[in-house]
Amino acid sequence: MGLSKKLAEYITSVTYEELPKEVIAFTKLCILDYFGSAIAGADKPPIQMIHSLIQEMGGEEQATLLTGGRSSVLNASLVNGAASHIMELDDIHKGSVIHAATVVVPAALAIAEWKNCSGKDLITAVAVGYEICYRIGEAVTPSHYYYWHNTATCGTFGSAAAAAKLLELNEEQTIHALGSAGTQAAGLWQFIEDGAMSKQLHPGKAAMNGVISALLAEKGFTGATQILEGSRGFFRAMSEEFDESKITSGLGKVFKITENSFKVHASCRHTHPAMDLMIDLTKERTFQLEEIDHIKVGAYQAAINITDNAHPTTQYGSKFSLQFCTALALLKGKGGLDQFTEETLWDEEIRALMKKVTVGVDPVVEGVYPEKWGTKVELTLRSEEKLVLQTEYPKGDPENPVTSNELVDKFMILANRLPIENREFFANSILELDLIERINELFTGDKLSIV
Amino acid sequence: MGLSKKLAEYITSVTYEELPKEVIAFTKLCILDYFGSAIAGADKPPIQMIHSLIQEMGGEEQATLLTGGRSSVLNASLVNGAASHIMELDDIHKGSVIHAATVVVPAALAIAEWKNCSGKDLITAVAVGYEICYRIGEAVTPSHYYYWHNTATCGTFGSAAAAAKLLELNEEQTIHALGSAGTQAAGLWQFIEDGAMSKQLHPGKAAMNGVISALLAEKGFTGATQILEGSRGFFRAMSEEFDESKITSGLGKVFKITENSFKVHASCRHTHPAMDLMIDLTKERTFQLEEIDHIKVGAYQAAINITDNAHPTTQYGSKFSLQFCTALALLKGKGGLDQFTEETLWDEEIRALMKKVTVGVDPVVEGVYPEKWGTKVELTLRSEEKLVLQTEYPKGDPENPVTSNELVDKFMILANRLPIENREFFANSILELDLIERINELFTGDKLSIV
Repeated sequence: MGLSKKLAEYITSVTYEELPKEVIAFTKLCILDYFGSAIAGADKPPIQMIHSLIQEMGGEEQATLLTGGRSSVLNASLVNGAASHIMELDDIHKGSVIHAATVVVPAALAIAEWKNCSGKDLITAVAVGYEICYRIGEAVTPSHYYYWHNTATCGTFGSAAAAAKLLELNEEQTIHALGSAGTQAAGLWQFIEDGAMSKQLHPGKAAMNGVISALLAEKGFTGATQILEGSRGFFRAMSEEFDESKITSGLGKVFKITENSFKVHASCRHTHPAMDLMIDLTKERTFQLEEIDHIKVGAYQAAINITDNAHPTTQYGSKFSLQFCTALALLKGKGGLDQFTEETLWDEEIRALMKKVTVGVDPVVEGVYPEKWGTKVELTLRSEEKLVLQTEYPKGDPENPVTSNELVDKFMILANRLPIENREFFANSILELDLIERINELFTGDKLSIV
Repeated sequence: MGLSKKLAEYITSVTYEELPKEVIAFTKLCILDYFGSAIAGADKPPIQMIHSLIQEMGGEEQATLLTGGRSSVLNASLVNGAASHIMELDDIHKGSVIHAATVVVPAALAIAEWKNCSGKDLITAVAVGYEICYRIGEAVTPSHYYYWHNTATCGTFGSAAAAAKLLELNEEQTIHALGSAGTQAAGLWQFIEDGAMSKQLHPGKAAMNGVISALLAEKGFTGATQILEGSRGFFRAMSEEFDESKITSGLGKVFKITENSFKVHASCRHTHPAMDLMIDLTKERTFQLEEIDHIKVGAYQAAINITDNAHPTTQYGSKFSLQFCTALALLKGKGGLDQFTEETLWDEEIRALMKKVTVGVDPVVEGVYPEKWGTKVELTLRSEEKLVLQTEYPKGDPENPVTSNELVDKFMILANRLPIENREFFANSILELDLIERINELFTGDKLSIV
């Protein structure tokens, strides 16, 4: 049996009942985490431009736009997919380097709302969607990643899979949905040189294209039946080398969604281990600027390459400054969106502490990268007391998990544009998603609208 | 100046007034030829499925659907793009192996109708759209073509260029439109193994994605500014080798749309040279089956590889049978849609004549392929009279052009679902497109609807 057919068989056969409890709980957190990033991103200029486009085009009122109002499931997938990939706070899978939520969740949500699906249906579809794009991503990592924004390319399959599941496509239709998804897969890294808005267009289009694929397959529209493994298919066209065993190994037995990492700080992932250590310290005691003699941060080389910046001059730049993030975390005890502001950017205390921070490569930390994204910090006080701290996994990695409460806190901050009662209703609803009979209950009363 | 920037500068600077007369005349024929294929294709199952999808999604009534009714410019681009690529009668450019009409024309038409553009605006936009996708296609030919359906991938740039021109985007906006187009470029050949409907999805999506790119750029949405030439851009990601000089050589001085080939017979292009020779013969005299002793067809190797089939069993298969097409053309004196029917497929006279046809490679013909797609035919009569005929270019190539009247005849047959007065109005209107003040005049009264 071909690989693409195996995936189709998997997609159609998974049931909610066979999902392990921890997978169900984890999937709900992924969906909640998606909403935080998407709600926070919805009013940013690139997302508003996409919103303006879909308003201009029009569409049936099938699904909620996180930018306000309702439109077709294709329009909703597009704008809601784009919205979640702008705050730099969406989830990430280390093995495939894919942000699955920003593609899979908006596609699944749009179909689930339109078709009056249950919470259990949504959970199953999202878990399946993550599984498909993680596996395809792992099969083509690392060569595919050089040119292709794999969140978008592999994500298109994930979106199609989630939509196919909710539409209850049969195996043959699902093969065609995957075929149409793969032949629409796109998204080049070239935009990164300009910092262009393609970053948001990619996941939005991937979500939309996956939904197009599933909806067309439902109508009998055919696609390539060996889109992954075929001689002119996805693997050979879009990667130098690929490992087919990643598609099948443990398929149906493990659920890779639990390998997902959540981001708890609003900065580059490479700054997180040091921030975690600083925040942990502040839980036991507080530190005054004057007490501190110096802080030595030992990271892996890749972190230094990207985040060694002693003089950030923009808010965005401060999120990529290991010196800034370390000082901020120690003085504020937090590193969320509320801490990265124009005010803290030029805060005199932080700037003074940054002068005491030196960053460099620690050979032990470097030796275990990229399996472990660790950091070692030596904090020396004027009293000559020396605190040595080390971590191997940033908070939010599966090996160093965040709690459900911490993710609710993150959601509450990210969604702070909404009234607190709406946020609480929403967080509670998602945490009890398996009890919801019809997904559209979530969206009644415009509780998510940014207006 | 970068390549992408040069193209953007070209797109924004071309004016109708500087188009040579023959380019204007030729562009009008390309548009008419598009309509014939699209109208004939509009009722076929894959196109009807796409139509059903967009009806379900809904949209503002901005542009005419050749499948009936009106919808958003994105929906119109999608279904009208798909419709023109199913009859195997749309135009083709030898140098880039691109069918430009099926992507560029529907995109341009949708915007032109929506924005009340003039016929001159439409002609200019279509000529520019062809230019962009031909040049990009030539730059990546032949390596790109192995995996990628370049009508779709390169066509996305052509659609964006035509839309950008009609929307009067400035140079900077146009660069971003090209960036967003290139990062959405997709379409793998894998579907060909299944004969899947991706064939139609590709040009439809390419037209739609190009329009999305231009509309977003108008709103300030940014894309990669070096999408073609950048280190992680279109050329390097999607071709083994590429020739940048194809982009710039003669840009603004020549108009490549006049290199376009039109198809006059409803069969594989490789069967056309032999059919042309047969049809020419019948203009001087008619042939009875009994008179003929045998017919020897000498073609190039690629034609033999694809079209040596002495026993076609389906209508589609008969279009890829050199034996069938040769016999059909000699007995019927034509090779249009009306000749390829279930009736002619099993016609006893044709089958009897096919037994007298032998096909093989002619070394002289093979020696000049692919510059010249020629064929040599030796027809020996029972009377021992021997007729030897040879052609170097199939009818419709720029070197062996069809007349305007022949293309009107082709349109009248392809569009025969419409009342004759509508077809005549439409053909005359397109041939005088430069006199039309507002493109939507073409679409009033639902003259093109298949209902």
